[in-house]
Amino acid sequence: MLKPTHETIDVNGRRYRLPVAPTAVVCLGGSSPDYLDAALSAGVTPFIARMMREGASFAADGVVPALTHANQVSIACGVPPSLHGICGNTVRDPLALGGEGADIALHGADDVRAETVLATAARAGARVAVVTAKDKLRRLLGAGLKGIRFSAEKAAQASLAENGIADALDLVGLPSPYVYSPALSEFVMAAGVRLARMRNVDLMYLATHDYVQRKWAPGSVEANAFHAMVDRYLAQLDALGWVIGLTADHGMSAKHDARTGKPQVAYLQDALDAWLDFPSTRVVLPIADPHVVHHGALGSFATIHLPPDLDADDVVALLRGLDGVALAMGRNEAAACFELPADRIGEVVVIARDDFVLGRREREHDLSALTVPLRSHGGFGEQAVPLLFNRRMASIDASRRWRNFDVFDLALNHAVRGDDFAFERALRVPERAMHAG
Amino acid sequence: MLKPTHETIDVNGRRYRLPVAPTAVVCLGGSSPDYLDAALSAGVTPFIARMMREGASFAADGVVPALTHANQVSIACGVPPSLHGICGNTVRDPLALGGEGADIALHGADDVRAETVLATAARAGARVAVVTAKDKLRRLLGAGLKGIRFSAEKAAQASLAENGIADALDLVGLPSPYVYSPALSEFVMAAGVRLARMRNVDLMYLATHDYVQRKWAPGSVEANAFHAMVDRYLAQLDALGWVIGLTADHGMSAKHDARTGKPQVAYLQDALDAWLDFPSTRVVLPIADPHVVHHGALGSFATIHLPPDLDADDVVALLRGLDGVALAMGRNEAAACFELPADRIGEVVVIARDDFVLGRREREHDLSALTVPLRSHGGFGEQAVPLLFNRRMASIDASRRWRNFDVFDLALNHAVRGDDFAFERALRVPERAMHAG
Repeated sequence: MLKPTHETIDVNGRRYRLPVAPTAVVCLGGSSPDYLDAALSAGVTPFIARMMREGASFAADGVVPALTHANQVSIACGVPPSLHGICGNTVRDPLALGGEGADIALHGADDVRAETVLATAARAGARVAVVTAKDKLRRLLGAGLKGIRFSAEKAAQASLAENGIADALDLVGLPSPYVYSPALSEFVMAAGVRLARMRNVDLMYLATHDYVQRKWAPGSVEANAFHAMVDRYLAQLDALGWVIGLTADHGMSAKHDARTGKPQVAYLQDALDAWLDFPSTRVVLPIADPHVVHHGALGSFATIHLPPDLDADDVVALLRGLDGVALAMGRNEAAACFELPADRIGEVVVIARDDFVLGRREREHDLSALTVPLRSHGGFGEQAVPLLFNRRMASIDASRRWRNFDVFDLALNHAVRGDDFAFERALRVPERAMHAG
Repeated sequence: MLKPTHETIDVNGRRYRLPVAPTAVVCLGGSSPDYLDAALSAGVTPFIARMMREGASFAADGVVPALTHANQVSIACGVPPSLHGICGNTVRDPLALGGEGADIALHGADDVRAETVLATAARAGARVAVVTAKDKLRRLLGAGLKGIRFSAEKAAQASLAENGIADALDLVGLPSPYVYSPALSEFVMAAGVRLARMRNVDLMYLATHDYVQRKWAPGSVEANAFHAMVDRYLAQLDALGWVIGLTADHGMSAKHDARTGKPQVAYLQDALDAWLDFPSTRVVLPIADPHVVHHGALGSFATIHLPPDLDADDVVALLRGLDGVALAMGRNEAAACFELPADRIGEVVVIARDDFVLGRREREHDLSALTVPLRSHGGFGEQAVPLLFNRRMASIDASRRWRNFDVFDLALNHAVRGDDFAFERALRVPERAMHAG
């Protein structure tokens, strides 16, 4: 543990050194290690290859549920959801609507119960920038943050009051990207490099979107092109002298029959309705936004709220017999096992088999919108994430289980400073190539 | 549910029809679905391809711990370990040696707390045969069985009293196989076909050994050759009119660093010894035989016995921070989640990340004996198993989670009888080709 100095901050029980060299944490949405491995094999990510060879690389785990916000907020806060409270997009409030209960979104800055490393560092004097793909995530991570904070999605609307920057589009120099395209993530990476060049920033967090990973498997032309794009921008950050930590929020897996391409879905609410004479069980899919039903609403993690007179053990036993279910357990066991906030999950937690997703009722999910065989996340199969750095690491415990939410600790407290400029200048990319897709 | 008749038997709460057509259940040791998929892609298993096309195929789960005996006995009994009691090779008896405690083997017929479908069917008049690769498994499955029961390993020593057959070697017509070779499993398959040809048998259980899978990955020349061998014998059983159910006890995964080939092991006893001032914690590796330490003693599942004054929650919290650990939980949660006998596991249960195994102390495991990068099993990554039949299935619940221990139920109660001879005779293999490797 570092000694406290005026150059350290304490955040959620961990101590961090304020950045000595400018430091960027890059979180790739949905990039499991197999995406990086395939891109490395194809030779399209020479800078990442160099990070692995000359920097440091760890096998790491994200948080289960392997969902975007649960992991992004864990990374930003350096602690699991039990401490910061964000365990998905949706939570059930059983007391809403006069006791009827309602699914509510977990998107408000007020919903986050812990401080981020970013906000605390900013308050201690560090110049901080956060760029996300989606604006929803920017709102969550921007909680209490004095600094630049904008999303690729809403860069055109950025204002000094709301985002700490008024000219985001001009700064980045790219057109406002279409939200459902790889351009959204490239905008984030380009913004990071531009901020590094044009603004005085000490600490940066960049979060790309999993659009490509949702559609394309590791090793596909599209996935390799995406990671090659990321690689080029990382090389530029490195050439500018930045310490880089690279991780992911979660992986992404095929959730369809390999032969037929048909989605593999266990419809939990249908099953409960058929088994039980209790109309008031309520399956909540934390991958989904409340009231927004599309194919993205299917992930490998669900929680179930039960009426008071229904025994959770009985429901657990029934669910264990349902095709596609890997694990069903009670609230307290799940909260302890997965470090979740017990008050924001149901009495029962279900995790799907790696190649399955969990739905509510078949008629509530419109699978006709799927243009490619379903890929998704949320369970054990998407917990493995990359964790790599363009610096060697000192004073680390070799036996420790690494998590994606250790990335700030490693980058700020353990990166070896002596080799800040050890990476060859030959990797510097000419300015004109900066925005090549 | 079938109506009870003189042609049905009740075993551990499930009702089975006695075989109408001769029925074989074949359990491939360590053959995860990816082994079959790779062999199918290579085109070397034409009969299995036909089973998938014209029979029935389910994605199924085995039992966690994904270990041989826990799954083999589950299959034979049609129920999980909570009911039959076999959850590994080793169990800790804390009262042994005058309270000092000792690891004891779970290999005795007396250790099985439930009846097998095989033994009950034999008592009801079915002519039953069980052939296993290893003799240890034969002893477990032979519990109370009136019928033929021998192992490839000890076929040369088979006697009428112990094995229900005196001339096992002569019957099979192959030399006594070396125990650490693919020949051990080929002997099992050859024995099955010979029994089908030469003896009056109604119900047969064949269990091959995971020697090949431990050494070779899916799609390797060696793994494809193994499954091609199995395929040839299955085709012969089919040509003889047998109903065939094919499953596996567990899968098999790489447990080493993909780049360096180095085994990835979390040494739990070393970690506990370093953390705690309690000399009497005891890590038990149920994959291992007690007192036999070799590379096979490393799997992805462990249980830990604690002294009475040590809080399991504290140990669970520590273990969650150890590299390679995917899940740590208390005894009761684990027993409920994984349907295990609570009295045969420790106060804490640990499951490794898919690419890790769990060891006791580093100095207790001799990894120098590894001739190829470590592959093993025991955790979630090895729970998926094939489950296929050379018959179509009737009256089945499409939403059900299938387990390998449903194989007797499906083969005996749901196989469609009308197409017993639907498979083309062209697949019949000439007798002289029978033993070709």
